Amino acid sequence: MVNIAIMGHGVVGSGVVEVILSHKESILRHAHEELNIQYILDRREFPDSPLADRFTKNFEDIVTDDSVSVVVEVMGGLHPAFDFVSRCLCAGKSVVTSNKELVAAKGAELLALAREHGVNFLFEASVGGGIPIIRPLDQCLAANNVLEISGILNGTTNFILSKMIDEGMEFADALALAQKLGYAERDPSADVDGHDACRKICILASLAFGSHVYPEQVHTEGISGLTLADVDYARAWGGEIKLVGRVKKLEDGSLYILVCPMFVPESNQLSHIDGVFNGVMVTGDAVDDVLFYGQGAGKLPTASAVAADVIDCVKHTHAPKYLFWEDNAPKNYVTSHLDVPVSLYVRGHMPDEVSEQIGDLFGEICLLATEDTPEQEVAFITPRMPERELRDKLAELEQTGAQIQTTVRVLERDGRSA
Amino acid sequence: MVNIAIMGHGVVGSGVVEVILSHKESILRHAHEELNIQYILDRREFPDSPLADRFTKNFEDIVTDDSVSVVVEVMGGLHPAFDFVSRCLCAGKSVVTSNKELVAAKGAELLALAREHGVNFLFEASVGGGIPIIRPLDQCLAANNVLEISGILNGTTNFILSKMIDEGMEFADALALAQKLGYAERDPSADVDGHDACRKICILASLAFGSHVYPEQVHTEGISGLTLADVDYARAWGGEIKLVGRVKKLEDGSLYILVCPMFVPESNQLSHIDGVFNGVMVTGDAVDDVLFYGQGAGKLPTASAVAADVIDCVKHTHAPKYLFWEDNAPKNYVTSHLDVPVSLYVRGHMPDEVSEQIGDLFGEICLLATEDTPEQEVAFITPRMPERELRDKLAELEQTGAQIQTTVRVLERDGRSA
Repeated sequence: MVNIAIMGHGVVGSGVVEVILSHKESILRHAHEELNIQYILDRREFPDSPLADRFTKNFEDIVTDDSVSVVVEVMGGLHPAFDFVSRCLCAGKSVVTSNKELVAAKGAELLALAREHGVNFLFEASVGGGIPIIRPLDQCLAANNVLEISGILNGTTNFILSKMIDEGMEFADALALAQKLGYAERDPSADVDGHDACRKICILASLAFGSHVYPEQVHTEGISGLTLADVDYARAWGGEIKLVGRVKKLEDGSLYILVCPMFVPESNQLSHIDGVFNGVMVTGDAVDDVLFYGQGAGKLPTASAVAADVIDCVKHTHAPKYLFWEDNAPKNYVTSHLDVPVSLYVRGHMPDEVSEQIGDLFGEICLLATEDTPEQEVAFITPRMPERELRDKLAELEQTGAQIQTTVRVLERDGRSA
Repeated sequence: MVNIAIMGHGVVGSGVVEVILSHKESILRHAHEELNIQYILDRREFPDSPLADRFTKNFEDIVTDDSVSVVVEVMGGLHPAFDFVSRCLCAGKSVVTSNKELVAAKGAELLALAREHGVNFLFEASVGGGIPIIRPLDQCLAANNVLEISGILNGTTNFILSKMIDEGMEFADALALAQKLGYAERDPSADVDGHDACRKICILASLAFGSHVYPEQVHTEGISGLTLADVDYARAWGGEIKLVGRVKKLEDGSLYILVCPMFVPESNQLSHIDGVFNGVMVTGDAVDDVLFYGQGAGKLPTASAVAADVIDCVKHTHAPKYLFWEDNAPKNYVTSHLDVPVSLYVRGHMPDEVSEQIGDLFGEICLLATEDTPEQEVAFITPRMPERELRDKLAELEQTGAQIQTTVRVLERDGRSA
């Protein structure tokens, strides 16, 4: 029997308890040990829990109990999670977390601590909820050089965009619905502004390429500026607007990494990921495109990924898995997105004499039209060139009287994703 | 440094050599050891290979060399693969294979041998080529009770169906194209008749539910009877025809497992898997639906999965992974598909007075029509009832003068796959 402790008894934490108690047979079959939840750390009281006698408000109970070999951190936030996790690792306990903020900010440091103390630090649930992605990326793709990862990493924004796309709902209404259904927080900015997706692409980039990438290094845009017009133009173009987290290794070894709304062509599997679902597309030099799809959040899906990590810790007590990356990125490891060639979707209002100049300014553009295109509204896809050049040309266009309303990057059709 | 041997130097075998030689850095990072290809077993000569001096025609060289700790079997077929793999495991060597025929027929036996000798027997590449599926199913879903697995498991038939669906190509022409492009064998029956998909769903079912399921136990239908009319009716209904391998645990603990063409609704991710790609949807009680997607075959994708397994063997030399199932299925473990409720798509020719009776016979049906529906052709979806009852009713319909041309099962819209 293996003693574990669970720090946090919110949505995910209570889900972990539920999954462990209701899957004893399956866990025994895989872990070859029973799991005993020895402590649950929470400031609140849960007198009606079947494990009411295991609750504690004192972290010291956990870290000083040598019988506890695996600790689950599902409190969220950086503090006190970082302090607690560090101390558990130093005390020789393996730690499992679903806390993407923690892994994105402190992953390299915590992985180094885990290695130093010969224990595991696992975080499958920090990206994609219940979808297996961290472990397959680390293990199954060990014989690949990863070229690129593109993902729909946030279920809340994907739900909102799906409502806009499928039901013609305005952004504000779709957000209100997401809040009503419990998919979005009262303060939705972490989701809507792309910060949640940013943490996840940082974790994936760090794991795939070996050097820690911090959220502050990643150009991040949210979806609050998108309108139904943009959604319609995306469809007229032959795809959907999705909030995409993307990292690509460039030829000089640096990373092109960003989070932003993108026009995703229908031929790309990511365009078919709807509602609260997540999808992560990994491109390796040998395996080509591989996609992982499922519920990116939610109590039981996330809890099942946490429980699977706990089982893995139990199986590997004497052979840590050494999932690893370092805080060793060279200078300019993250390239400015402005230096990388891209196509932009552009929507704006302009007098006819201005719109007639667009072709001269950008070269071969693709004009888009929908049934509802208002007069003097122009929407087009630019040719591919360094984003800085495109931005300069757009500024020039504005000086001649155009009002640019939205620009969205295009996920290029590179022929891989059939 | 770890010495390995590779048995077979065909498409996959030469791919394994290529992947190992071209990913030394990534392999070292994950395995913490270099891999040395000590032997390659093949009856042919390869004087131009960079490893020409490693070739042998004698299996005894490999099995008697104690310095070899991992053996890759990529010869295919049951004999002599089964004998060679058994002897390697008994000699204390871990074995990695891509041979689905071997795993589907002898998996339980070989897993027992591996456990007995404290070594690994891994076969990630046997299902879904390069797509990570075996390992995620075993590890990440350890905290789930698997309810169902549905997959597009054969790229050749999916390519043929995609050509029929997207380009209106007749079955025979699409098959000829697949053969020309090297996706189909000169004798295409293993793919076209569903036997390849059957082996794969047997492997997935055995792993997910713990008891070996043999291909002979699985009702298997191929795609050679499908016409463009069926493809069109599927679209009129709101989906696509796909060759699906499916296993579902029934309430009494028995399995409903079969391989057959199915009408897949557009709302199900499997309907969007086109061309030579594969996709496997796993439904767990905690994680809900998870989909794994990628190239299900091909030299380098498959080779990269084999190489990842080799790396895993190296990492777990002293702690076998115990991926496991047993040959312990109770009597009637596999339920007759005729006893399970299903909806059928039915297409036939019949006089008007016969077609008018369909509603009386089946209850509430859904009539389908396309632009090209010929006179006296009738296509409809039956209500859901035990398949045996549906077959009885169809026989009755034929007695009154109907000619039934095709029946295809419907993958029910169960509201899970949004």
